[in-house]
Amino acid sequence: KVLVTMGSDSDLPLMMKAVDTLRLEFGIPCLVQINSVHRDLRTVVRHIDNLPASVQVIIACAGGAAHLPGNIADLRADLPVIGVPRDLGALKGVDALLSMVQMPEGAPVAVMAIGDAGAVNAAIHAAKELAIAEPAIKERLQAYAEKRKQRVAKQNQTLENKLHMQQ
Amino acid sequence: KVLVTMGSDSDLPLMMKAVDTLRLEFGIPCLVQINSVHRDLRTVVRHIDNLPASVQVIIACAGGAAHLPGNIADLRADLPVIGVPRDLGALKGVDALLSMVQMPEGAPVAVMAIGDAGAVNAAIHAAKELAIAEPAIKERLQAYAEKRKQRVAKQNQTLENKLHMQQ
Amino acid sequence: KVLVTMGSDSDLPLMMKAVDTLRLEFGIPCLVQINSVHRDLRTVVRHIDNLPASVQVIIACAGGAAHLPGNIADLRADLPVIGVPRDLGALKGVDALLSMVQMPEGAPVAVMAIGDAGAVNAAIHAAKELAIAEPAIKERLQAYAEKRKQRVAKQNQTLENKLHMQQ
Amino acid sequence: KVLVTMGSDSDLPLMMKAVDTLRLEFGIPCLVQINSVHRDLRTVVRHIDNLPASVQVIIACAGGAAHLPGNIADLRADLPVIGVPRDLGALKGVDALLSMVQMPEGAPVAVMAIGDAGAVNAAIHAAKELAIAEPAIKERLQAYAEKRKQRVAKQNQTLENKLHMQQ
Amino acid sequence: KVLVTMGSDSDLPLMMKAVDTLRLEFGIPCLVQINSVHRDLRTVVRHIDNLPASVQVIIACAGGAAHLPGNIADLRADLPVIGVPRDLGALKGVDALLSMVQMPEGAPVAVMAIGDAGAVNAAIHAAKELAIAEPAIKERLQAYAEKRKQRVAKQNQTLENKLHMQQ
Amino acid sequence: KVLVTMGSDSDLPLMMKAVDTLRLEFGIPCLVQINSVHRDLRTVVRHIDNLPASVQVIIACAGGAAHLPGNIADLRADLPVIGVPRDLGALKGVDALLSMVQMPEGAPVAVMAIGDAGAVNAAIHAAKELAIAEPAIKERLQAYAEKRKQRVAKQNQTLENKLHMQQ
Amino acid sequence: KVLVTMGSDSDLPLMMKAVDTLRLEFGIPCLVQINSVHRDLRTVVRHIDNLPASVQVIIACAGGAAHLPGNIADLRADLPVIGVPRDLGALKGVDALLSMVQMPEGAPVAVMAIGDAGAVNAAIHAAKELAIAEPAIKERLQAYAEKRKQRVAKQNQTLENKLHMQQ
Amino acid sequence: KVLVTMGSDSDLPLMMKAVDTLRLEFGIPCLVQINSVHRDLRTVVRHIDNLPASVQVIIACAGGAAHLPGNIADLRADLPVIGVPRDLGALKGVDALLSMVQMPEGAPVAVMAIGDAGAVNAAIHAAKELAIAEPAIKERLQAYAEKRKQRVAKQNQTLENKLHMQQ
Repeated sequence: KVLVTMGSDSDLPLMMKAVDTLRLEFGIPCLVQINSVHRDLRTVVRHIDNLPASVQVIIACAGGAAHLPGNIADLRADLPVIGVPRDLGALKGVDALLSMVQMPEGAPVAVMAIGDAGAVNAAIHAAKELAIAEPAIKERLQAYAEKRKQRVAKQNQTLENKLHMQQ
Repeated sequence: KVLVTMGSDSDLPLMMKAVDTLRLEFGIPCLVQINSVHRDLRTVVRHIDNLPASVQVIIACAGGAAHLPGNIADLRADLPVIGVPRDLGALKGVDALLSMVQMPEGAPVAVMAIGDAGAVNAAIHAAKELAIAEPAIKERLQAYAEKRKQRVAKQNQTLENKLHMQQ
Repeated sequence: KVLVTMGSDSDLPLMMKAVDTLRLEFGIPCLVQINSVHRDLRTVVRHIDNLPASVQVIIACAGGAAHLPGNIADLRADLPVIGVPRDLGALKGVDALLSMVQMPEGAPVAVMAIGDAGAVNAAIHAAKELAIAEPAIKERLQAYAEKRKQRVAKQNQTLENKLHMQQ
Repeated sequence: KVLVTMGSDSDLPLMMKAVDTLRLEFGIPCLVQINSVHRDLRTVVRHIDNLPASVQVIIACAGGAAHLPGNIADLRADLPVIGVPRDLGALKGVDALLSMVQMPEGAPVAVMAIGDAGAVNAAIHAAKELAIAEPAIKERLQAYAEKRKQRVAKQNQTLENKLHMQQ
Repeated sequence: KVLVTMGSDSDLPLMMKAVDTLRLEFGIPCLVQINSVHRDLRTVVRHIDNLPASVQVIIACAGGAAHLPGNIADLRADLPVIGVPRDLGALKGVDALLSMVQMPEGAPVAVMAIGDAGAVNAAIHAAKELAIAEPAIKERLQAYAEKRKQRVAKQNQTLENKLHMQQ
Repeated sequence: KVLVTMGSDSDLPLMMKAVDTLRLEFGIPCLVQINSVHRDLRTVVRHIDNLPASVQVIIACAGGAAHLPGNIADLRADLPVIGVPRDLGALKGVDALLSMVQMPEGAPVAVMAIGDAGAVNAAIHAAKELAIAEPAIKERLQAYAEKRKQRVAKQNQTLENKLHMQQ
Repeated sequence: KVLVTMGSDSDLPLMMKAVDTLRLEFGIPCLVQINSVHRDLRTVVRHIDNLPASVQVIIACAGGAAHLPGNIADLRADLPVIGVPRDLGALKGVDALLSMVQMPEGAPVAVMAIGDAGAVNAAIHAAKELAIAEPAIKERLQAYAEKRKQRVAKQNQTLENKLHMQQ
Repeated sequence: KVLVTMGSDSDLPLMMKAVDTLRLEFGIPCLVQINSVHRDLRTVVRHIDNLPASVQVIIACAGGAAHLPGNIADLRADLPVIGVPRDLGALKGVDALLSMVQMPEGAPVAVMAIGDAGAVNAAIHAAKELAIAEPAIKERLQAYAEKRKQRVAKQNQTLENKLHMQQ
């Protein structure tokens, strides 16, 4: 249901965070594919033209002059495209962020944070999009949020104990 | 179906571009609301808690230390939140962009370009999200894309005529 | 008297520098609390609404899209809020700095340096604020400044000896 | 009670926003003074050494290599110093922001937003600091916040009417 | 011989500086074409695949998330691609510059300055490339450089007269 | 045929990537030379004036205030100059990038990415320039592109196998 | 005694501020010359090699990829070179600032502020350098500083009167 | 003859590069002193007011909100002040660079590169300033430049041998 794609297999460890979040937290299956617009744009066009009809959301990761999500945004006027900028090279992902976020009117890329947080958040945002049509996912999103809330509560509890003991 | 919200009525001219795109291009009704987390956060929480069940996507615009979309992302773990950074003040929207895009793991904001392009693209991305459940919107997205393609073709035609006449 | 709060327990080592400065240098007790607006905004509102009356100043630390101090600034129109941006992630705290400092008219956050210096300085600034009502703290601030002056004098003495010996 | 100071009389229009906010909104009298560390540092030292005992908070504005607040922070270890960076010159206040906010451990400057919002917020933050000792100011701060809340509510009302009429 | 292409007809005034420099200074004919990868990527692929064999160098201009030159660099592994970033929008061309220059290993884009200087320099660089095979262009490049040298000499002469008269 | 030059022998490891790409991938011989405009500008002028006639393209690398490519661009109005900014020092190559790319009208430097990718891409771009006159190089460029395409295809194959096994 | 030089006659209005400050405030004569390293580097070398022996300090202004001061710093190992970055183009002088200030070890350029303040300050710094050998200039520097101090005092007087009348 | 001063003894290793260059390369004695305007501004004023008459040039190093050179520039209208920004903290010296270089009209700081190169270049620039009055230093500057030229020549020789052997 979600295509998770990236410019190179060096992006894979980062994007597995998105894949795992989708699968394990939200029960959403992924198609994982490498699409390099800077090595083989024609094949990317063919891949994206021929995505299985089950793909409803696309997550695309790239670094540097990160064109992949923007190109897909043009090729698929019918599917939401989420971009994840990689923290890579001398500019630490600022280049990738701007290459993705400053898309002109008409071809949106929905951009997430640079690096790890962005990969996980792309998965959550994709789940939110799919939840519009699938109430079951909405429940899992609520459960996921609940877990996060409990984690803060627990951190506060631990902190209180720790500071108490110091006194 | 789409909540279009912003931090101040000075953001309204920009966000009407999103509203108009949603209504006129994609036939998607909007709820328009001002929500100022820096003037009345408690009311924002109440507003967002009590959104009509028909709201499926949220577009939020803010400038400077732009916290509105991030706060909504926490409040509604079940709805996708799209952020539009305003080109405002000394930093020309770079502050708003970073305040939105660098969200931590768990609370995604899907960020669009700074300013006008971002407002229109937020609407298109929202339409893409709604299209997952509504095939009719998918057709309008294709028609919209088709119009954009024809505009390029026409620009090329005009250009050719113009350059031909110069010779 | 001072609430020292932060978005996550990973911020604790940094903020203990503020806590220790307040306690050890100025004899000011702290309430330490984790408040994550990106995991549980409603609980943050409740926490901040129910602070003990003894809290007179708030120090808030966050990284990335650092919304915590700005949100508290809205919730407590009656208490000064000091922000400490964390040096975190690809943008090294520039995102947190801008997310805090560019607050709109009406909801001030008093921002300190990114990282360690900011944490200690937040404590000193809080002490200066409390000293308005408590002359005893003013004396401790003067003593603290005196220690810093003596440290420079001593550095110069050491330097002189060292350079003298080299000749 | 509040010293509002600046590097040049060209900063006066900006800082009058702070002065007017202090006086009109919170009933706090100001001492207004020009202190130019880049034209006459010795006189600045004398001025700051000889402030009337009634001064409890200092607001300092500067542009470019904005050293004034930092210098005052050293001279008065006993008073809170709030900095307002001016939106001035080629770098649009980024230079002033960094010159103020990146103070080393020991000499805090509490930095506000670049330009207009910063000037007003400096006044509000100063009022919050003084309110620690003066409950009357606390009430005015609450009233001020109330006015801001009502303004949002009214903006929403106007917006609703306007959009209703369009339909 | 040179394809001068751009993302939109709004880029035409800028790129006519390149076209005019090529034609008038170096006698090199141009093919001018609009190619919008963010409106119609498939047509761009077709256009670039079917360029006349006479095209030997490509100059591509774009603003914001400027993907056009990078995409062409992949499509035509056999032709040099020169990029001109437009000074456009909130980021004044920094986004376009980074989107072009940070290309990954394997698909070079030769990037020129942001805006006017970049457009003219793209033409001169293209002429230098064509001059490798055509000695006549090399002579025109030398003549062009000679004109520039004489212009400096004349500026100095004018300056000297002017300053002399002032004495 | 290609002069590969740099400001210091500390740039050599980076530039050997350009040299090796030119020699091994495209069979293009190089002249390698150190030219330091910040240590001996007069010798640089002499070196560049006296390049063997066989040099048709120049690749120049520098870091910091990177003046070498710009100076050569003036000295040789007849030869294309490609610049490679080094990822060096506190600013990580942003200084070198801007020092190269913002050349004024009349003296183009064709700038590549900061660091490794830039060095290899300079070689490929040089090969593309030489290929205008030498069809044999065009074939090698196509072969090089083919290898890159096959690498992506293989990455996708490996990925598919790996993910398949995980199921 | 001071060479004031610049890359183009468009820099002249800015640099006349340096010339006028040198002549009128400090009685120091100037040689004014256009030296364009991006149009005619060889002539620049000749000019700088043949400066009259009376030239003791050099002030050089440039914008964009501002190489002029750096090149002169190499050519004249015996004379101090002061750089003034112009506020020009999309990057507002940040490019010129970095192109000048990030000089490698061995060839210093003493860089002033971007734009007007930089031009005047270059003149003052040059006067300070010449004052090492000429006590008369030292007196004029003291007089100049005195005038600046009196101007602040007067600004404070005017301010006091104005605020007094408002009461 | 040269005061080398810095904000803290942690700056000493960096500034010893300036001291050693002055002493060993140019035979210029130094006074080394710690002057911390953020710990003890009054003592800095006293130190700078009471410098021995033999001090003719001042080199000042600082990091972060680097006010030291700017403050000295005001205190000593008669002496040239050279600033060295430290590569320190989250912003890697960009804060120190801007805090030094953006001085307002009237109080120049001559700024060098961030970090090591800046420290050495400050020494060379100071030597150039002193050479105006002392021909002996001018000779040492020429000798120093000569050594640097020979080092490039030798690097080229080594490179040639190395590449020759590879063939």
